[in-house]
Amino acid sequence: MQVVVPYSPVDPNTRLEPVLTRSERRAFARVMLGDVLAAIEAAVGTPTILSPEPLDGVSAPVSVDARPLSAAVNAILQPPMAVIMADLPLLTPTTVERALAESGPVVIGPGRGGGTNLLVVRDDGFSVDFHGNSLADHRRLATEAGLPFAEIDSYRVSTDIDEPPDLVEVLLHGEGEAPEWLRANGFELRITAGRVALHRQ
Amino acid sequence: MQVVVPYSPVDPNTRLEPVLTRSERRAFARVMLGDVLAAIEAAVGTPTILSPEPLDGVSAPVSVDARPLSAAVNAILQPPMAVIMADLPLLTPTTVERALAESGPVVIGPGRGGGTNLLVVRDDGFSVDFHGNSLADHRRLATEAGLPFAEIDSYRVSTDIDEPPDLVEVLLHGEGEAPEWLRANGFELRITAGRVALHRQ
Repeated sequence: MQVVVPYSPVDPNTRLEPVLTRSERRAFARVMLGDVLAAIEAAVGTPTILSPEPLDGVSAPVSVDARPLSAAVNAILQPPMAVIMADLPLLTPTTVERALAESGPVVIGPGRGGGTNLLVVRDDGFSVDFHGNSLADHRRLATEAGLPFAEIDSYRVSTDIDEPPDLVEVLLHGEGEAPEWLRANGFELRITAGRVALHRQ
Repeated sequence: MQVVVPYSPVDPNTRLEPVLTRSERRAFARVMLGDVLAAIEAAVGTPTILSPEPLDGVSAPVSVDARPLSAAVNAILQPPMAVIMADLPLLTPTTVERALAESGPVVIGPGRGGGTNLLVVRDDGFSVDFHGNSLADHRRLATEAGLPFAEIDSYRVSTDIDEPPDLVEVLLHGEGEAPEWLRANGFELRITAGRVALHRQ
């Protein structure tokens, strides 16, 4: 199945500003993209990156479309196809295989907080809407199109990287380059008052 | 397999203080316990509740032990046995079945932030330690005992209810009484600046 990975190199992961500079955020976003591409590659083969501008030095073909995310995805959407976000550094080949093995016309991988981190679309009657409460929107769009939908119960799919506490999850569970990048840049876990907290040297 | 559900009615879910009074927290904790018991009951039969004090009006037998959690669990631990936390209102029978079907001497269901929300123990050489960074501790304890361990990749297992944003997940994904209780007590989801936020009337 063809897989599309939307990715934007323009000022990524702004909510990590409290702990990473702009150039660090750009570097870390690229490392996370690499982990996601590697997991998909090992599971089902090379995906296509969907980016608003050309990218150098990536290990997958790039489709360039500067429109907003939903419009750009819908323009490239040709069922059967999967859409997998680029900020999921906990993704493993096993997780990708499990998600793509789920049958049905629409398969949703919810993100924490009401987002959508993964979609499998096997019917022409469905289009995506990643703005706002996209989980509720995708449930509604599938229902309106008369398409049953399944939802993946995966912690690794649900964990997109938005805010500094999410980096704890990368250090605890990441199996790719992202946890190595964080450690090389001084991040580590510390137990504070019985809880795991992020610390930067 | 026998399942133990640790539960304490004494001032539960203190980090929900910003949005719930003490008596509301007690009521909501009991509703979440009911959802967890129902999911386990439907999957594998009646579990045992482990509580520091006697409980009235619960649908499962109660084992009373006032010691700290780890000591109380280790005292009752008789492999094969599963330990499942009481504040997992996203748990479904399918999730419980999937976790208990995972083979091996030790199966860990990580909680967000480095906790342990579910454990399956099939070997006498393992004991639990729920204090602090329990995910890292359980990985280490299994390794030290020479026991291979598996980890469950489940969003529903990983989502324990600590802080107000976690209630968003209950409203989005809960299938039991907990989301109904929240709605009956005035909670609802609102889209704010493209994100899903909790609102109380």
